[in-house]
Order: sequence, then structure tokens, then C-alpha cells
Amino acid sequence: MNPSRRRFITRSVGFLAAAGAAAGATRAEATDPPDVPLSMKTPGAGMSAYGSPARYEGKVTREFIRSQPGTTGSGASRTPLESLEGMITPSGLHFERHHSGVPDIDPQTHRLLIHGLVKRSLIFSVADLLRYPLVSRIHFLECSGNSQLLYQPTPPNLTAGETHGLVSCSEWTGVPLRLLLGEAGVEPGASWILAEGADAAAMSRSIPMAKAMDDAILALFQNGERLRPENGYPVRLFLPGWEGNMSVKWLRRLKVVSAPVMTKDETSRYTDLQADGTSLMFTYPMGVKSLITRPSHGMTVPGAGLHQISGIAWSGNGTIRTVEVSTDGAKTWTKAPLVAPVLPRALTRFRLPWKWDGTAAVLKSRATDDTGAVQPERDRFIAEHGNNATFHFHGIQAWSVAASGEVKHVYA
Amino acid sequence: MNPSRRRFITRSVGFLAAAGAAAGATRAEATDPPDVPLSMKTPGAGMSAYGSPARYEGKVTREFIRSQPGTTGSGASRTPLESLEGMITPSGLHFERHHSGVPDIDPQTHRLLIHGLVKRSLIFSVADLLRYPLVSRIHFLECSGNSQLLYQPTPPNLTAGETHGLVSCSEWTGVPLRLLLGEAGVEPGASWILAEGADAAAMSRSIPMAKAMDDAILALFQNGERLRPENGYPVRLFLPGWEGNMSVKWLRRLKVVSAPVMTKDETSRYTDLQADGTSLMFTYPMGVKSLITRPSHGMTVPGAGLHQISGIAWSGNGTIRTVEVSTDGAKTWTKAPLVAPVLPRALTRFRLPWKWDGTAAVLKSRATDDTGAVQPERDRFIAEHGNNATFHFHGIQAWSVAASGEVKHVYA
Repeated sequence: MNPSRRRFITRSVGFLAAAGAAAGATRAEATDPPDVPLSMKTPGAGMSAYGSPARYEGKVTREFIRSQPGTTGSGASRTPLESLEGMITPSGLHFERHHSGVPDIDPQTHRLLIHGLVKRSLIFSVADLLRYPLVSRIHFLECSGNSQLLYQPTPPNLTAGETHGLVSCSEWTGVPLRLLLGEAGVEPGASWILAEGADAAAMSRSIPMAKAMDDAILALFQNGERLRPENGYPVRLFLPGWEGNMSVKWLRRLKVVSAPVMTKDETSRYTDLQADGTSLMFTYPMGVKSLITRPSHGMTVPGAGLHQISGIAWSGNGTIRTVEVSTDGAKTWTKAPLVAPVLPRALTRFRLPWKWDGTAAVLKSRATDDTGAVQPERDRFIAEHGNNATFHFHGIQAWSVAASGEVKHVYA
Repeated sequence: MNPSRRRFITRSVGFLAAAGAAAGATRAEATDPPDVPLSMKTPGAGMSAYGSPARYEGKVTREFIRSQPGTTGSGASRTPLESLEGMITPSGLHFERHHSGVPDIDPQTHRLLIHGLVKRSLIFSVADLLRYPLVSRIHFLECSGNSQLLYQPTPPNLTAGETHGLVSCSEWTGVPLRLLLGEAGVEPGASWILAEGADAAAMSRSIPMAKAMDDAILALFQNGERLRPENGYPVRLFLPGWEGNMSVKWLRRLKVVSAPVMTKDETSRYTDLQADGTSLMFTYPMGVKSLITRPSHGMTVPGAGLHQISGIAWSGNGTIRTVEVSTDGAKTWTKAPLVAPVLPRALTRFRLPWKWDGTAAVLKSRATDDTGAVQPERDRFIAEHGNNATFHFHGIQAWSVAASGEVKHVYA
């Protein structure tokens, strides 16, 4: 170490509460400027056609990538929520859930068919779709299987992203589905639509006509650019707030029908087996939910003092109205400020300063949406739904902070 | 071509005005489903740690990448605005402007010094900064040299992005600068701050204290993940709405001073030479501006009929209030709906259907912000400012559409 550097770091100081907001600081006081770094002595790299993250961020990747035995593409990858901030998920880190991998689809040859109970069957190229009026909306997308490990009797020894990372948030741009249905001319009695993907799993779901006519879009762009392959390039259905796999990727066919089709993807999968042995079908909207992402499992809180809690909240039924945070295992709750803009069916960031006294603590967050729905405690959720199910878990997440600062997933 | 495919495309149809919005369509009517595509017959690719755009989108890159002779990193690359939709720019396509390339900075060793007219000089590691309260905001960033070719007497033969692509929009997350200044303790009489980057150009600008105490942030995250190297990794200054190079990247030093420092980057560069030979200095906010991105120079409108106009508007002084579109060379104007959320100092998307009669047309857009400022016609802008300058052009952009459909940049 350069001895002149040792001189200017005189002492470590605690923290100072700045006007209105509390600032946690470990910065040192300085007497001399730091040495001129190497980066100022030599020209840097040139421009690039398409940028990438810094090499120092190489560990921030999709995580917990798991596939069915014998396959590479029938599985999921998760957004590293604990490493991210704000509302938008960069498209490179959007979660994936595929049933037979990511197809390679040429947008020149891809076609979308609308047929069934319509006055005229229509077939669209991607270029055709791009000529229709577009809408843009920031929405989360969540796999209905997100957080499924919390049905298990013991808490998973996994990070926030590994446990809950089947949720991401993007700006989606596409054509309102109602425009295309209007043009095809929906026949009386037509109340459902079969949506089919062009992947090898032929992902197929039955969509209620009311949703199709409300806010469904055929998404062509994600975060400004065209859809990524793993998000349905060149075109996907997007049903705001509803379980992810209904937003059928690589969309090739919409068949207007009079009743749900009972596809394999809504009978053998994506149903919720209850404690009494019956199954719930067609449980579409994702429940009101929140999660503290920092600090979270696997992190260490570096000593007593002031820290910043950060997390995300969302609801498939509307807009987040409040998020409360508890640092004493749900004995007391404090409302956390929400980061504007707070948008319907979008991730909403909340943040709250926390002065930790250095003793064991349990952190929780609890979201309420504008329908009045409140995120339930895990105990109550399991008591109501049993633990046979694997989908739609949206109970409260608890993290314990030990006196050592170690943060772990607990049921508390 | 498969003969069975030929059968189901029976005829091409025109367009149909859907309720409230007009739908331009070239889709065909279909009698049979399309053939099952290859993508349904074989499993697709597996999950990936960090995703990339589809290979079919390989042409959508930063464009017009130009560097000073003998360098690779002293230049700029531009966002391909004509290929994008919505408000967010994907970070891989955010424009670049570097004065000596992109430094490779290890966040473990990087330090930020606050010194000068303060009660205590402070030095921060990146880990220190991450412990402070964060804010997140969606803002555009625009290089003051954006659109500079429009000062020239003849219109550039370039695309929208090549001409105007030194503007991008991201969700930025960071620490309010006022918190750190409050902690350092600003001395009386301290009214400016020198901001210095850790690049080999030592990019240096004088920042008025009022802006630093208002909405300036030290940005650490961009679109959810940590800053990209070309956007200042690991930490940059961010001054919402102000000319881009004041948002000093790779920030290493903030020196609190009593007067502007008159750095090379605010005397020999980034001043506006006027018609009368004087130069304007410290012209910070980027003016109210808009631009039709589709259709735009280099595209061809595929025949008379219904088309969708799409564009972006922004103002460094506030929020976009209205965008008007003319398709007859500014004889008549129509208000274009704005895409929500309309945010201060952010790109705002506007869209408007256009029924083209197939004769020559001139398209323009004109933005007004909530201060009442109106984007000027190019003629008026040049009459006021002359054409010696290279910075801060924000006049109206005109695109001509020929009877052939060919779209070109014109002064009209």
C-alpha cells in the first residue's frame, strides 16, 4: 500500500442523520486527494455496438437455473432480485420459464392466425402487426409457480432471487388484442380464446374473452427493443397481472371458442391442489405480494447502526396502496414510502431506513393493494390453502437478522 | 413454396377502423391453419445466464459510431431511435459519448472524494455509497451536441437515430447528492462544485450548488442493474434535464468551490457560439424537443391508407404537456395522445394514426412543456442562434414522404 494513501484516511466515522432522511455512512474523512488512478493515465476502451454489464458484475446473472432431467430447456431461471434496484428488470435478467426450450423463430416467416368463432379468419405477419396502433405499459410478469418453496415445511436456504425470482418487470409495447378481435368479428356465444405458442410444448391456455377485450396486448417490444427470444420473440400474448404462462410466448394461434379447452397446461399443470383434495382451476390474477430484497438471505448486515431496507411489492389485481415493514417480527409496523410512479400491475419499490440495535431481529413486509387486499402471513395462507399446492404463494416473507448480522430465511 | 400454404391466403384486404382507434392492416384472410412450424417439432434452446436480443435483430445496434482520428474511444455512438418503441432505452443501446474511452474501474478500489469548502472532507467507497438512502427516477439523458447536423445548411442524409440518437432514457437509481453534501457540511460562500471523472480525459464540469442541492443524484444503478461501464460504472453524477456531459461519469471527485472553475470542458467545449461571435456558457437545460421516429428518414411508407405515427418528446425544464403533429408541412396540427406515465425530464412517447392519401406530404411534430415553452421551427431557431453553434439544437424535425412512400429528411 502506498504510504501516502495511508495518511489521508484518518478515522472511520459513524453516521449522520441528514435533514429529513437518515444517512448510514462508513465513509472516512480525508485530508489529501486520492492518488490519480490508472484509469486516468491511459485511454479507455472504444464504443460498442451493443453494450454489456461491467466485468466486475459477472456474478449478477439469472440464478437457480434448473431444467427437467434430460432437457436443457424445460425449466426456469430466476431474476437476481437481491442485486437489483428500482422498478425495471433489465431484459437480460428477466426470469425464464420454458416447457420445451426457446424456439428460434424467423420473424419473416412467423404467422399468427385468429380463427374459430369469428366472422373471418385472419392471418397476420409480424410486419402486419407492426402497422396496428401500439400501446406501452410497465407491468410485472410473475410465474404462478413463483415462491413455491414456501409451501414446504422448512424455509429454503436460498437467496431472495432464488426463492422469489420468477417475477420481473418491463415496459411492454404491443397491439391491443381487442383491435384484432374486432376486425375478425367475434361471433355471439364466443366467450373464450385458445392461445397457442409455436414452441415444441405447444403451450396452450384458455383465455376468458373479457380479459382479451380488456387489457390484453400482443407484445412486440420489451424495454424499448423487440422482445427477447426467451420472452416470446417475435410476438407474445400479454395479460397484465395474470399468471405468467397465460401470456403465451411465441404466439401462433388464437382460436375463439365457446368454452375453456381444458388443455394439458390448465388441467395437469397450473391448477392448485387444496388441502381437501380438490383443485382450483383458472386462478388467474397473481395475489398481492411484497418482499424485502435488501437485506435478505445470504447477506450480512455490517454492524449495528443505520441501514436502508429496500424491497418490491406488486398485485395482479391493481395498484399497490401501502407497504408496511416490521423489524420486530410483526409486533409493530411502519409504512414505507413508495417510489413514484406507482403503476397498476407493476413492481413498486419501497424503501425505509432502519436503525439496528445489533440484537436479533426479524424483518417482514406486508403489501396492500387498491382493492383492499392485504398480503397474508404465511401461517394463515397455509392454513387456508394447505401445502399440497405449488402455485400462487403470496404470503409474507420473513428474514431473520442474527446478532452477527447474518440474514436468513425463517418462518416467523 | 408449399402449395397447401398458397391456398389459405385468399386475398389481401385494406384496413378497418376499430372503435375509437384506427387499425391499419395488411393481414390476409385465412381458410386453413398455417403449417406446423419447425419450432414445434424440436426442443428449443436452454436457459441462459444473461440474455441477448434475437439474432434476427442483429442490425439494431448503436449506430453512427464515430471516433476522433487516431482514437477508438474519443467519440460517440447513437441510440437507434427509429427501431425502438416506448419510453425506456435498453442499456445496451444507450448512446455513448466519451472523451477518452471507457475506463475499466474496479469498484473495490474506486473512491469518491468530497472536499474543498466543506467542514470535513469525506472519501467514499462504492460500498459506502450503497448504504445511503436511494432514490429511483426515470429520466432522459441527452448530449448537448445531439442533432448538431441540423445547424448545417442542407439536411443530413441520415436516419432518426443517426441524427438525433444522442438521447436515451433509463430508470436511474442513486444517492441524492444533497445528503452527502449535508454530511460534509458546505461552508458559507460555497456556490459551485467541480465534478471530475476518473477517465483519461478527466472530464470536469462546474455544477451550480442549487442544482446539486435540488435533484442531483450519484447514480449507481441503471434500468435495475448496476451502471454499465459506458455510463459511468461504478458511479456517475446525474443532473436531470441538463446537458449530458455535466452528468460526469466515473465520478471520483467533487470539490466545493466559490466560483465556476472554467475547465477545458466548459470553455473550449460545450459553449454555444452565436451569430454575433459571442459564446453562451453554462447553458445547462436541454430545450423542449420532439421527433417522429416512425415513419422517418430511410423508411418507406407502404402505400396509401392508414398508418401509425410514433415519436418521442422531452424537455430538460419539466414535463411534456402537449405534442402536436402535422402531416401537411405545418399548415394544420393535431394533438397526439401521450403515453402514460408522462414523467418530468423523461422521454414521452406520442402516437397518432395517419390516413395517407398517397400524395407527397411533410410530417412534423411540435412539443410544448409545462413551463409553456414551445419547440421552435428550425428556421426560427437558426435565425435566433445562427449556425455557428454545435450544441443545444432543438428545432422541429421535418420528414418528407414522397408519392413513392420514400421518407427523407427535409428542411421545410
